[in-house]
Amino acid sequence: MNPTWVGLVAGLLTSIASLPQLIKTWRSRHVRDLSIWQPLLLSVGVGLWLVYGVLIRDIPLILANITPLISNLLLTAMKIRYCDNDAETPPSIII
Amino acid sequence: MNPTWVGLVAGLLTSIASLPQLIKTWRSRHVRDLSIWQPLLLSVGVGLWLVYGVLIRDIPLILANITPLISNLLLTAMKIRYCDNDAETPPSIII
Repeated sequence: MNPTWVGLVAGLLTSIASLPQLIKTWRSRHVRDLSIWQPLLLSVGVGLWLVYGVLIRDIPLILANITPLISNLLLTAMKIRYCDNDAETPPSIII
Repeated sequence: MNPTWVGLVAGLLTSIASLPQLIKTWRSRHVRDLSIWQPLLLSVGVGLWLVYGVLIRDIPLILANITPLISNLLLTAMKIRYCDNDAETPPSIII
């Protein structure tokens, strides 16, 4: 098994992993079952990986963290923005 | 700014990022707003990072990916297990 290919596929998958959640949340406008801590910790974490990449001048590390940084920042913002949509309201169809 | 410390904090944060979601899902048993693709892609992705760490004999890379591998595998299993809890049912309190 070629380690470089394993690393490249690993980097690709972890880079795009939060995009499906971003699309689902954008479409549904519901965030009831999402913990805000996952996108928040990932935003700070991958942001620091990006800073680390800049400090050690590692282009792949910088590139691999741009997509997850943007998508996790957007997910954090959506969790804050849409939590009002999920406030418990009495069912209006009961007469 | 010391790059090593930036990298260590980045690695710590991205390692533990999925734990709050795991705890929330375990407690609520609800997975309506979770996309199965995020934990699934992260499971395969961090699993491959772990394989890459073994192939290039990099202990920090191996250690950093054990926690997210386990928590994302558990989240994927919970998404499958609990989706029945979230099937739409008519409200039983309507007479």
